[in-house]
Amino acid sequence: MIRVGVNGYGTIGKRVADGIRLQPDMQLIGVAKTRPNFEAETAAQKGYPLYSAIPERSHQFTEAGLDLHGEVTDLVDESDVIVDATPSGVGAENCSLYEAHDTPAILQGGESPDTVDESFVAQANYDDAVGADLLRVVSCNTTGLSRLLEPIDREYGVDKARATLIRRGGDPGETDRGPINDILPDPVTLPSHHGPDVQTIFPDVDIDTLGVTVPATLMHLHSVNLTLESAPSVAAIADLLSRQSRLFVVPPELSIDGTAKLKEFAKDAGRPRGDLWENCLWEESIAMEGNDLYLFQSIHQEANVVPENIDAIRALVGHKTAAESIALTNDRLGLNTTQQYTRSHQHGSPQPADD
Amino acid sequence: MIRVGVNGYGTIGKRVADGIRLQPDMQLIGVAKTRPNFEAETAAQKGYPLYSAIPERSHQFTEAGLDLHGEVTDLVDESDVIVDATPSGVGAENCSLYEAHDTPAILQGGESPDTVDESFVAQANYDDAVGADLLRVVSCNTTGLSRLLEPIDREYGVDKARATLIRRGGDPGETDRGPINDILPDPVTLPSHHGPDVQTIFPDVDIDTLGVTVPATLMHLHSVNLTLESAPSVAAIADLLSRQSRLFVVPPELSIDGTAKLKEFAKDAGRPRGDLWENCLWEESIAMEGNDLYLFQSIHQEANVVPENIDAIRALVGHKTAAESIALTNDRLGLNTTQQYTRSHQHGSPQPADD
Repeated sequence: MIRVGVNGYGTIGKRVADGIRLQPDMQLIGVAKTRPNFEAETAAQKGYPLYSAIPERSHQFTEAGLDLHGEVTDLVDESDVIVDATPSGVGAENCSLYEAHDTPAILQGGESPDTVDESFVAQANYDDAVGADLLRVVSCNTTGLSRLLEPIDREYGVDKARATLIRRGGDPGETDRGPINDILPDPVTLPSHHGPDVQTIFPDVDIDTLGVTVPATLMHLHSVNLTLESAPSVAAIADLLSRQSRLFVVPPELSIDGTAKLKEFAKDAGRPRGDLWENCLWEESIAMEGNDLYLFQSIHQEANVVPENIDAIRALVGHKTAAESIALTNDRLGLNTTQQYTRSHQHGSPQPADD
Repeated sequence: MIRVGVNGYGTIGKRVADGIRLQPDMQLIGVAKTRPNFEAETAAQKGYPLYSAIPERSHQFTEAGLDLHGEVTDLVDESDVIVDATPSGVGAENCSLYEAHDTPAILQGGESPDTVDESFVAQANYDDAVGADLLRVVSCNTTGLSRLLEPIDREYGVDKARATLIRRGGDPGETDRGPINDILPDPVTLPSHHGPDVQTIFPDVDIDTLGVTVPATLMHLHSVNLTLESAPSVAAIADLLSRQSRLFVVPPELSIDGTAKLKEFAKDAGRPRGDLWENCLWEESIAMEGNDLYLFQSIHQEANVVPENIDAIRALVGHKTAAESIALTNDRLGLNTTQQYTRSHQHGSPQPADD
């Protein structure tokens, strides 16, 4: 049993905590929070032991009627692994705490790759992470690009990758974000950080990325161009991608025209919080022009790094192989509920995933 | 004096009519409208003779207190050239009327290229249009791509063009358009029509385009990649582009971060309706990676084909050369008011435009 603590219980932390609770080989020791709010209340209702991330504010929890199990130092001490889901920059500051307790930790994509031993995407470099002290699960966009690049580069070779990331302005709960009714080059200077970040996972892939931010909150959308070393058929690419367990190749029959219907579909399918843990890739968008592959995929920024965080926990302690961990994570999260649509469409009957 | 009638007085028609009134070699005979509304009222206030586009509805104008000068057939009969700015598909239906009166006409980009003798972008193929019966001013996005491609292809050679068009959902006045809080592949099947449409202007350019629609109304934004036959410096490209009179290379000093500030700038500069007739191209976004040029540009969908429509009138009757027409149109519209910012930034002092 891997004893796991989650430091930071916001958008990512609460999803990772829920995911950890579903794993047969993990025990959620507790979650650390900076202050009592609706998320602390629901954590308490779920029975998650609460720890105060800022000792000076511990009394606020008591005043709000919430029992504290200790300070964040206690959580780090009692855990085999910490998932740090604090805001960008705070994770790096927390590293000395983790090191002082000799507790390996997983940071999020907002931290610098230089802070950690390895940047991590389960399907790409799980084995490199075994035994590390500090891992970084790369950002949602970088994870999304990496999941797509891995099978295509392995199967056909990627000569050059180019992607325009149409980024949501903020998450649904981030009321202080924008833009309203605008389209912003973001960043205006090229390339965006995503290309170099992908190279922390695939050092040899030549990739240029551009970012644009728009007034939407549900998901990102990637306009992807991969110049391949050969010219496979669209059907062959669709087949390859449909066999990746964390790519949902959206069949035309579902009549899903954008990110809102993707989220509606996830809610109808009973996904917790309507989460989409997998890249959502429109099958109809897959096109070849010479050696140039084009496609659209959407990335649910709140959810798609959740399975990677869970796999990263196992990678740090080395309990399972990549394939074992990915399969177990997928199964316990319920990630395969969308795959059946792809499988039945592509193959007529379910086939085993090829990660 | 070229006698010009404008059939269709909506988003494009009203702007073209205003532009025609400013030209020393044109006379606005009148504008045809299907029904009285606020646009008909302001046309009457400006003294534009009103014609009824649908005879059965003529009485509605009288009932609204608006004087009619005749039916649309009268307008066609009295004009040397008609600018048809009716909704997509209606222009093609109107062609028999123009042919019956032997009046050359200019259609808009929503019509099929097969309907007309030539598709038109002033900087690219003005001379091909001289003496035609039916011209088509290509759509705002195609005009925007063509204006960018022309100087770069001429100077450096474009081996391959790729663009993702992040499209506004509708114009500010189009209250029945969407999306709200969504990002839509549009179209989801690739390529979008824009690439083939650019090839009506540049048949030899290899171009793939992708379209995405977002909840914004102000302008489109293009994420552009051009693989060049050589690798010029960023400074050389910025200099080349800043010398094109219908490209506004936005200098960093203006602190314009997106489409909303571009429009605010145009309004502050006293532009009618806050119109941006030129491509707005972020200088900071110009980047070279090997032979790959990247940049962002925004296109004001309501305005950027207005100068092309005015040049198309002259091209049809053959009164002036391309350079003469473009210079006159720019001067009379007041298009050069943004160029001064680019010129002073790039060159220290104003230089003549090189179209």
